[in-house]
Amino acid sequence: MRAYQLPKSGAGIEALAKVELPQPKPGRRQVLVKVVACSLNYRDVGIATGKYRMPTKPNIVPLSDGAGEVVEVGPDVTRVKVGDRVAGCFFQRWVGGAAPADAHTSALGGGADGMLTEYALLDDEGVVKIPAHLSYEEGATLPCAALTAWHALVEHGRLIAGQSVLVQGTGGVSIFALQLGRLMGLEVVATSSSDNKLAHAKALGAAHPINYKSTPEWDKAAMEATGGVDHVVEIGGPGTLTKSLGAIRVGGKVTLIGSAFAGAADINPMLLLAKRANVQGISVGSTQMFEAMNRAITVGGLKPVIDKVFPFDEAPAAYRYMQSAQHFGKIVIRVQ
Amino acid sequence: MRAYQLPKSGAGIEALAKVELPQPKPGRRQVLVKVVACSLNYRDVGIATGKYRMPTKPNIVPLSDGAGEVVEVGPDVTRVKVGDRVAGCFFQRWVGGAAPADAHTSALGGGADGMLTEYALLDDEGVVKIPAHLSYEEGATLPCAALTAWHALVEHGRLIAGQSVLVQGTGGVSIFALQLGRLMGLEVVATSSSDNKLAHAKALGAAHPINYKSTPEWDKAAMEATGGVDHVVEIGGPGTLTKSLGAIRVGGKVTLIGSAFAGAADINPMLLLAKRANVQGISVGSTQMFEAMNRAITVGGLKPVIDKVFPFDEAPAAYRYMQSAQHFGKIVIRVQ
Amino acid sequence: MRAYQLPKSGAGIEALAKVELPQPKPGRRQVLVKVVACSLNYRDVGIATGKYRMPTKPNIVPLSDGAGEVVEVGPDVTRVKVGDRVAGCFFQRWVGGAAPADAHTSALGGGADGMLTEYALLDDEGVVKIPAHLSYEEGATLPCAALTAWHALVEHGRLIAGQSVLVQGTGGVSIFALQLGRLMGLEVVATSSSDNKLAHAKALGAAHPINYKSTPEWDKAAMEATGGVDHVVEIGGPGTLTKSLGAIRVGGKVTLIGSAFAGAADINPMLLLAKRANVQGISVGSTQMFEAMNRAITVGGLKPVIDKVFPFDEAPAAYRYMQSAQHFGKIVIRVQ
Amino acid sequence: MRAYQLPKSGAGIEALAKVELPQPKPGRRQVLVKVVACSLNYRDVGIATGKYRMPTKPNIVPLSDGAGEVVEVGPDVTRVKVGDRVAGCFFQRWVGGAAPADAHTSALGGGADGMLTEYALLDDEGVVKIPAHLSYEEGATLPCAALTAWHALVEHGRLIAGQSVLVQGTGGVSIFALQLGRLMGLEVVATSSSDNKLAHAKALGAAHPINYKSTPEWDKAAMEATGGVDHVVEIGGPGTLTKSLGAIRVGGKVTLIGSAFAGAADINPMLLLAKRANVQGISVGSTQMFEAMNRAITVGGLKPVIDKVFPFDEAPAAYRYMQSAQHFGKIVIRVQ
Repeated sequence: MRAYQLPKSGAGIEALAKVELPQPKPGRRQVLVKVVACSLNYRDVGIATGKYRMPTKPNIVPLSDGAGEVVEVGPDVTRVKVGDRVAGCFFQRWVGGAAPADAHTSALGGGADGMLTEYALLDDEGVVKIPAHLSYEEGATLPCAALTAWHALVEHGRLIAGQSVLVQGTGGVSIFALQLGRLMGLEVVATSSSDNKLAHAKALGAAHPINYKSTPEWDKAAMEATGGVDHVVEIGGPGTLTKSLGAIRVGGKVTLIGSAFAGAADINPMLLLAKRANVQGISVGSTQMFEAMNRAITVGGLKPVIDKVFPFDEAPAAYRYMQSAQHFGKIVIRVQ
Repeated sequence: MRAYQLPKSGAGIEALAKVELPQPKPGRRQVLVKVVACSLNYRDVGIATGKYRMPTKPNIVPLSDGAGEVVEVGPDVTRVKVGDRVAGCFFQRWVGGAAPADAHTSALGGGADGMLTEYALLDDEGVVKIPAHLSYEEGATLPCAALTAWHALVEHGRLIAGQSVLVQGTGGVSIFALQLGRLMGLEVVATSSSDNKLAHAKALGAAHPINYKSTPEWDKAAMEATGGVDHVVEIGGPGTLTKSLGAIRVGGKVTLIGSAFAGAADINPMLLLAKRANVQGISVGSTQMFEAMNRAITVGGLKPVIDKVFPFDEAPAAYRYMQSAQHFGKIVIRVQ
Repeated sequence: MRAYQLPKSGAGIEALAKVELPQPKPGRRQVLVKVVACSLNYRDVGIATGKYRMPTKPNIVPLSDGAGEVVEVGPDVTRVKVGDRVAGCFFQRWVGGAAPADAHTSALGGGADGMLTEYALLDDEGVVKIPAHLSYEEGATLPCAALTAWHALVEHGRLIAGQSVLVQGTGGVSIFALQLGRLMGLEVVATSSSDNKLAHAKALGAAHPINYKSTPEWDKAAMEATGGVDHVVEIGGPGTLTKSLGAIRVGGKVTLIGSAFAGAADINPMLLLAKRANVQGISVGSTQMFEAMNRAITVGGLKPVIDKVFPFDEAPAAYRYMQSAQHFGKIVIRVQ
Repeated sequence: MRAYQLPKSGAGIEALAKVELPQPKPGRRQVLVKVVACSLNYRDVGIATGKYRMPTKPNIVPLSDGAGEVVEVGPDVTRVKVGDRVAGCFFQRWVGGAAPADAHTSALGGGADGMLTEYALLDDEGVVKIPAHLSYEEGATLPCAALTAWHALVEHGRLIAGQSVLVQGTGGVSIFALQLGRLMGLEVVATSSSDNKLAHAKALGAAHPINYKSTPEWDKAAMEATGGVDHVVEIGGPGTLTKSLGAIRVGGKVTLIGSAFAGAADINPMLLLAKRANVQGISVGSTQMFEAMNRAITVGGLKPVIDKVFPFDEAPAAYRYMQSAQHFGKIVIRVQ
């Protein structure tokens, strides 16, 4: 079977190599998935360029996100059957409840081989059925970005209808947070440096689009629009966290999301104290969270926003397109 | 000022008397509200006809639900000011957290004088501002029925987008549960004996309307439609609770709502055990819950469903209309 | 290896047969445990005598509860290693979060072969290390009764120090609820028909022992002693649930526990409504709950109360002793 | 009546003036308390010396913490009666649920007149009965320090028996966190620069005393002792927060407590992300939390640790003793 491999973390996008690998055979409680489509996350670019904080298996098959069809199941598989349309779970071994301490060792495309391959060997409890109204391309966008947004809003935020959330920029996590937030009845504040992108965000239901270039004090603008937002999905970057703490109401929450934090500035803990804020770092989510999210996507008829689809042979171009940060929503790679 | 009084619980609808009472003066932490509209609940009919389980103050001014304008405030009032459009809270002394043990002594129209009057004297923490997009008639529908539905779905249910709820019939609590459930992204199953009413419920967003006359095994129908509902808002009546326990999934919940339970049949606790069900009795909600609900109503643009509006002088006719159980949604009395 | 088998559910205690079975070999994510001791629960007697509500695998190796040493591990086992002292988990496939819908199919000694054997084949995620200060006999008492009590108090009850719990009788679940409750800082009310057993319960920390023979209105006695208990661990039996609902405060909770409910009387749902009670049926607990409980047992130095230890060859006598209901705490069978 | 007043925040300990004030009269929903004893918190010293972050009423009667006897009640008081032994609540208007946004305006000894007076006028919902086994001196230690510790462990931490907490130093909050933690079945790590104080902490139940002078890498020592603590009650100071984030397990929590944070160093948000930590700023707690804590103190028989008692006339000396930071536990002022 055909797959991509990256020799080691930081080898560079140009080091991504198309290889021929033996097709794996599912063991006890394993399933074999014929991958149809994958999607990209900042983490994947970070792994290729050496900016990701977790260790990566050598010669990794990259990408956490992919969807396809179950073509074979091993003994004692109970959750899916041949023919099911599934996505892989970012963490193969985090079923529900608390994450196992060694969760990262089972993270697809990082600690374990990922989805940029024609056939992926996954755990019974490491796949979930994708919503019936979604294509494989759309289903492939869910495992990392959508679930991270869901984890932030539902599990950390415990947000209820009528509360407000601020999303930053128009990457995958933020656009899913906007769309999922609308499903839940939330009031959404969206920031971007582009009025075009803000118009798109508004069309998706953002009540308060704020251009952070023309309104550098976007924290005050958000405070004014909402009386203090209940929640910020903080994707990091220089200085944003301090502003996020400025945007929330007393008793508000901030969820810290992954990859862009390497360059984040230090913060003054007095800001947390003054706002009696709750700040939580998260990392994607569990299989049970994924299933719960898929029910919400199904009932709400949510359609993931796909910016561009690249063919399998042009996977490196997809990486570079993400690096350019022009996208709105998700970047997809079609495998077959 | 003009008001209605009921000499005692069970005196009968015909005993409702229009009286002239002195206009009250707000003391410390009290506000005076000029009432514009009231709404009716089964409990009010139950109090008049002697079928309500809680004790009632003699010569009670009836009705828990009303909305109007703040016209005077006493010392140390901090939450509202003259001119604010407010609704009274069912419990005048349940601000947030756990209900005080003696909450019923401050329940409007039961333990304490209610809203069927031109001027009502309420606690600072016993009023909430009504959403700006609602009229006084619409605001007057919220205190008991809507908040009960909110308490069931949000506080007891902790329901998240994508989960399912079953609502019974088309009274105030059930229609609010349907509407609020849709705001939250829930899949709604609605039962009624009338296909017309089910068509209306469907128009409001119910995914699965079930006619319990033509489908007596509505529990099985609900199970089939959803794979087992996550939550039932149980308004009582002979035999419904056993069927509700049949309709839920393993691990599902049932909220027991007030007034109609006098005639409810006994249930077998094995049903709860077999479903690992969670069953909770509730009673309306707190001032903080009311404020949270109003934010959801505002963000979602929810409009309460009003069946009919009666003038102040025809309040007894409004009671009799509720008794007839023909209504869909709320019955309102216009005070001024 | 030697083991017991029961030909089918309801075959009777006398049908328990000592057999010679081939020693199993662990597959992927499986471990082999050399069992040192087992313990009995009402459920086991119920399975033998045909009074248990869940289906049982034919020729089942009985008993959910056992502890021993890991002697071999299959591929991809990450949670334990050879030499670890472990107990098996009642449910082999409920790691954390919500229970899988088909959890009972992996229940030891019911849906799947259990622990009354020299060697048990268990899932990697279906074993937990036992506290270092406990013997194998003591560790073998934990999987069903202790974890059920923990689930009731911690997961359903969310009880905090200073709250009160009522435990019924002196079987395994109730005595563990008493001991775990004391670890958590709870005020414990204990009922029994025997003053001797109540003296023992008092020595274990019960603040309010009540003899339900001499005080048939034990609900009122509990109400008087505590002002209304916060929580009842309800083990069932004719009429107890109605009394439990009488014993709790407004807003209190009742957890329904398993096996004895077949003979429970119907209850009036008005009782739940009047007390705004929360009633939940539960079934043992997850692997993560078991690990959390073991930390509490370790920090608190809790020692399980063992009534009597039977040798392997006298397992049927252990069943009959449990049937006689004379015990206080747990009944153990020594395997090797 | 005699009282102390501070002309304004930052006027200095020497500006504390004994004055004669008219004895107040309780209005609607107010109670008059004859104060027997008060206790000191860092915040009180901070207000006197100008290091407290919240605004202070001019000519404030200082101190949030005091206990005494109800000697008169106004109309509509339902929670207490004349003769009750009570403590005042730090926030007079935070009954339960979420704190009101303007809570600080009702904070005793800051936004509103406090307890260093012979008679204090308090809200009905701003007093709680003190545990029967405590003296007035002991009861006077609870309102700020103990409730802050309770809020951290129970409300933010949701800690359950068997989990671990790290407390810093031997001030009021830390010693209460140690004692309350033990009541709840927690494993306690305690730090101090004094071996004598650590011996005392050990006698109170701390499992792991760590001298941060002789063990500057106390985060690693805590990690080693516990495998990563579940919770830190962070009282601030230069650099401690970074070490606290080092001491917790993945998924652990840190509660930020008040006054000493003015001098806290900035932190790198990557630390929160790497540990998937949850960090929350808190401020004392509600009346309902206080009542819950008092039940725990009663059931557990907890006795507050009082370092020294000063007479009313020597209140400034009590302030200076706190400034010297020699104390272990609470400093009390006897009023009458």
